[in-house]
Amino acid sequence: MIEFSGDYSEGAHPRLLNRLVETNMEQTFGYGRDRYCAEAVKTIRKACQNDDVDVHMVVGGTLANTIAIAAALRPHQGVIAPVSAHINVQETGSIEAAGHKILTIPGENGKITAAQIDKVCEEYLENNGNVHVVQPKMVCLTHATEYGTIYGRKELQVISDVCRKRDLYLYIDGARIGYGVAAVDSDMDLPFIAKCCDVFCIGGSKQGAFFGEAVVVKNKYIADGFRQVMKQRGGLLAKGRLLGIQFHELLVDGLYFELSRHANKMAASIRGCLQANGIKFFVENTTNLLFPILPDNLYGELSKKYSLTYCGRHDDKSSIVRIATSWATTERNVQLLNSDISAIMQR
Amino acid sequence: MIEFSGDYSEGAHPRLLNRLVETNMEQTFGYGRDRYCAEAVKTIRKACQNDDVDVHMVVGGTLANTIAIAAALRPHQGVIAPVSAHINVQETGSIEAAGHKILTIPGENGKITAAQIDKVCEEYLENNGNVHVVQPKMVCLTHATEYGTIYGRKELQVISDVCRKRDLYLYIDGARIGYGVAAVDSDMDLPFIAKCCDVFCIGGSKQGAFFGEAVVVKNKYIADGFRQVMKQRGGLLAKGRLLGIQFHELLVDGLYFELSRHANKMAASIRGCLQANGIKFFVENTTNLLFPILPDNLYGELSKKYSLTYCGRHDDKSSIVRIATSWATTERNVQLLNSDISAIMQR
Amino acid sequence: MIEFSGDYSEGAHPRLLNRLVETNMEQTFGYGRDRYCAEAVKTIRKACQNDDVDVHMVVGGTLANTIAIAAALRPHQGVIAPVSAHINVQETGSIEAAGHKILTIPGENGKITAAQIDKVCEEYLENNGNVHVVQPKMVCLTHATEYGTIYGRKELQVISDVCRKRDLYLYIDGARIGYGVAAVDSDMDLPFIAKCCDVFCIGGSKQGAFFGEAVVVKNKYIADGFRQVMKQRGGLLAKGRLLGIQFHELLVDGLYFELSRHANKMAASIRGCLQANGIKFFVENTTNLLFPILPDNLYGELSKKYSLTYCGRHDDKSSIVRIATSWATTERNVQLLNSDISAIMQR
Amino acid sequence: MIEFSGDYSEGAHPRLLNRLVETNMEQTFGYGRDRYCAEAVKTIRKACQNDDVDVHMVVGGTLANTIAIAAALRPHQGVIAPVSAHINVQETGSIEAAGHKILTIPGENGKITAAQIDKVCEEYLENNGNVHVVQPKMVCLTHATEYGTIYGRKELQVISDVCRKRDLYLYIDGARIGYGVAAVDSDMDLPFIAKCCDVFCIGGSKQGAFFGEAVVVKNKYIADGFRQVMKQRGGLLAKGRLLGIQFHELLVDGLYFELSRHANKMAASIRGCLQANGIKFFVENTTNLLFPILPDNLYGELSKKYSLTYCGRHDDKSSIVRIATSWATTERNVQLLNSDISAIMQR
Repeated sequence: MIEFSGDYSEGAHPRLLNRLVETNMEQTFGYGRDRYCAEAVKTIRKACQNDDVDVHMVVGGTLANTIAIAAALRPHQGVIAPVSAHINVQETGSIEAAGHKILTIPGENGKITAAQIDKVCEEYLENNGNVHVVQPKMVCLTHATEYGTIYGRKELQVISDVCRKRDLYLYIDGARIGYGVAAVDSDMDLPFIAKCCDVFCIGGSKQGAFFGEAVVVKNKYIADGFRQVMKQRGGLLAKGRLLGIQFHELLVDGLYFELSRHANKMAASIRGCLQANGIKFFVENTTNLLFPILPDNLYGELSKKYSLTYCGRHDDKSSIVRIATSWATTERNVQLLNSDISAIMQR
Repeated sequence: MIEFSGDYSEGAHPRLLNRLVETNMEQTFGYGRDRYCAEAVKTIRKACQNDDVDVHMVVGGTLANTIAIAAALRPHQGVIAPVSAHINVQETGSIEAAGHKILTIPGENGKITAAQIDKVCEEYLENNGNVHVVQPKMVCLTHATEYGTIYGRKELQVISDVCRKRDLYLYIDGARIGYGVAAVDSDMDLPFIAKCCDVFCIGGSKQGAFFGEAVVVKNKYIADGFRQVMKQRGGLLAKGRLLGIQFHELLVDGLYFELSRHANKMAASIRGCLQANGIKFFVENTTNLLFPILPDNLYGELSKKYSLTYCGRHDDKSSIVRIATSWATTERNVQLLNSDISAIMQR
Repeated sequence: MIEFSGDYSEGAHPRLLNRLVETNMEQTFGYGRDRYCAEAVKTIRKACQNDDVDVHMVVGGTLANTIAIAAALRPHQGVIAPVSAHINVQETGSIEAAGHKILTIPGENGKITAAQIDKVCEEYLENNGNVHVVQPKMVCLTHATEYGTIYGRKELQVISDVCRKRDLYLYIDGARIGYGVAAVDSDMDLPFIAKCCDVFCIGGSKQGAFFGEAVVVKNKYIADGFRQVMKQRGGLLAKGRLLGIQFHELLVDGLYFELSRHANKMAASIRGCLQANGIKFFVENTTNLLFPILPDNLYGELSKKYSLTYCGRHDDKSSIVRIATSWATTERNVQLLNSDISAIMQR
Repeated sequence: MIEFSGDYSEGAHPRLLNRLVETNMEQTFGYGRDRYCAEAVKTIRKACQNDDVDVHMVVGGTLANTIAIAAALRPHQGVIAPVSAHINVQETGSIEAAGHKILTIPGENGKITAAQIDKVCEEYLENNGNVHVVQPKMVCLTHATEYGTIYGRKELQVISDVCRKRDLYLYIDGARIGYGVAAVDSDMDLPFIAKCCDVFCIGGSKQGAFFGEAVVVKNKYIADGFRQVMKQRGGLLAKGRLLGIQFHELLVDGLYFELSRHANKMAASIRGCLQANGIKFFVENTTNLLFPILPDNLYGELSKKYSLTYCGRHDDKSSIVRIATSWATTERNVQLLNSDISAIMQR
């Protein structure tokens, strides 16, 4: 089987792996107090063009999201997110287990708007003196979203503005932030994201690392005690340098976005082939996750050879399927897939 | 500086690293649903001589402890542990953050006894109809303990018996379980531990892996939903195979205990040297953590060249210091340390 | 201002108050270990025709709901409830603060169906091996609902059946259970509810008591440790007899349902008047909460003299308003309201 | 049986009960938004000589303590308290269930000192960069303590000073604050307490009310969102006026302290009798809780007629017993007890 089911099917990018091998027998302090973590922090600050942010690295996305939200919110406060948010549907109630309600709003293709956020706050202020309901205090966006869509600068700016106006923290779950920034139609970059957010994360696990998310914390209230919340929730890796080494390598010279562009390009090739064969998409996007509506025979045939992710029935003749590419997706595998698609469709 | 401050100063044992390199570009499913994890589960079951246990692998010790305890306890139930337990003093309140009180009892050199556990339960039953106090429902031991001491079979058996009698789950935090089992004066092994416990973990992070703890779950109530609790608390690694590969390699042919024996042997060499130079110990033990009481001049001199862990003042002329060895400790570094100790002491 | 804004505007029914006065200087044990609580437990068991249930009394509805749910669920489990459920929209995230996700389903007039519950469970079983999502383990209905609607025996029976089939606990938030049972078109009674549920509460605060909800616990797993969860969450009243005295008096000879019938009758009178004057309703029901759609002039005029609850705009000429009656609503006040409605509408 | 087992054996003081009867059929808004609560807030501010504090009333002590602490602390922060604190030993792990570790220090007769608090903070700062341990952020004292002892002004002032210096919130659990303030050797008053604390509560349940604790919140961070935390934890009483009416009545003209003085006086009479008969005390104090060491024959005889609280064996011939008086303790019952004590001892 050839894997197109996720962007975490292989190990780490060889450059990262090599650095882990080279440094393996070096001795360092534990828990992130080593030179490699210090170096990675510098590198990430530089990539964000902001020397005043705190940077912490944790092993995975659920940890990054839960820690960022738990560190920010008081007990009566909740986080606004689209229904489709990873924290709402793919993390087994981690935010609720940390004590907080997710104030869901219907997204469109995984995205939400400043107007929707504003409305939640307006309704809160009008509601019964605010005592019987949770206070909206944070917004959680995903970029690129779970549907592979992206926010533009203007969109993010107005969301950031409404957050400032409404006294909300803005958090971006950036598990796939590279794919989003590197999309051909994107005008986003890390410095702009850092400017707009209180806290966000830069995903490694789905973007070329063995594992790891770098959490960039700009807000001083959230930053205070952040490492303690990390430790309390199991997010402080003993051999922290494994994270430092990988993140430095990914971000020091643009490898991160180069890998993202590669994945997006591989996805574009598949997208083009599907479109050329008349396949429609459940969601239009320009990043590494495709959501084609596959006729049953095509899906059935492809499934014998390729691992894809089933998302749901579309109608009585077709299903919505997720095809994911990554830094590791080879042109050869994409060509195989494309020629199989064409062959099946043109029978 | 030469590191003796912890047992997690280097990366992974070369055999583990090699396997990670060899398998790096293979494609597998995520979240532990891969062949390497399946293989590791088999290997661990075999090492425990129990095919009926569930085995789950998480990244770190705080995650292992918190997940095992959170999966076991209802809201009004607490966990009995010695004051010195890692969960009580080194994990930033992770158990309390999961909602549970730690019912501490004074340990002796990190160990607790069946009689102490029994007494906590007796007092609970006598207390005001039990309503105003937390129900003791679990016991958490560490093996080897935070002071490097170990339990013998008889001790563990009577603790297990009192747990059965009192309807308590028995959990062993095995972050250093290899060092404990491999101690020269130990009669313990994994099958016996598996027989006595409801759940325990086999530590990787401090025992030769990049990271990872394998949680062995025998109790069916705790096992039910365990992976969901793992995911909820951020303990389900996306590229789960990294854990499977490492644990299989560690346990398939005894490498794990070989490394533990090496570390214990290195510690024994340092212990012998210290004793020969008249140094007393805060705690007597036979594993990889030494707690010598170092005179100020010796500690001062050694600190210029070696990284040690300060534990506290002993009297006005000496301090308690922790010296740790590991799989990676070289004979050469031990000889250097020993000859420096002797030289300073014999001035 | 004449109160129609809630069913908790006055103190306690005089019979309850008299008993509190009569017994005031008697000495009893605290925390529910007194003869009055014992008597109330017997009375409630008799009213439920079930001697095998545990009965616990707490001060308020949020406590009753949170304790029942916290006592039932493990960390990875959630509770299915309609979007309109009190626990979802009126209790400031209490369930999430206790660590659990509410798995909301769209209700119809506050009610949900067995088919909807079944579907949630079906989707759960199909979802990605169930690991990344919360396990549905409990259903929370409200009866009468927040919209004053009620379930019939057949509806509740099929919901109970699906809960048994899907291994879900069934909980009924009965803050207004009397109004529901006493509705003219109701075929429900407490014994049938006790037969169908694992746990439910009988509301006092909105049904004639100063305060108090009696939680009836049939399920043995939930019952075990229930009083400890109560104490932990602040639900164990020191002078517990205040609850026992009130609940005994309410339920010993049918006063509870007599008061409910009175409230429903008062509501019916207002409903009839509104209908006669051509007013439509947002929700049709037969209990003590009315949701008429009031034209702006009518609402404006009434608001000068009567306290009503604004629920939202209906269109540019009218609003949805809640009118509540209770045991304490006088015929005189209803006649005043009715004649004012007719006078304003017939101008 | 004559009750001396607690200070909550009777109902409410007749003046409070009368006011509840008089106001019973009045209509008010719910959830504390009524004139009686507004009046009580004014009365309590006046009693504290501070118009700038927020005042909230909840039903019981566990709710008051949990809400005050949950509203104050972030996830990685804990509360310093003596081992004997009610929150540590009598509330079924409520603070841990809210996510926070209690950082216990050994008390002396229920009291702790500024030096002990300072030491906890000093050790925290020295501990491993503070990451692996909980941050001490609050101090919880009880006044009068669980052993009936009291703090003097100077003691409280230096504790308050060290809290300011160490950036700790100071909370006083005042379930028995009246008994403490009204003790014959006390120089404390409510304004001084309000000056020293960030938040404290004035107990009603053990001091003459049916139920209720008034939480006085001076700190603006804790005050923000306090009512939402109250609602979330079930602490917002629907018929809030019941609390307002009682607290106004207790505090408007000094009834509260008059009742406290009465209880203390009744205790002094019993204390004098015990001393005259050669009985020693486990703890010396001047408030309403006595802890005599009763010889077995005396304890055995008294137990036939009086309800006392057993606290533990003292030696093989005597037990420590708690005798409690309250506003409702009659001189007649005290005389009966005293003459029985003398008669038994002088046989």
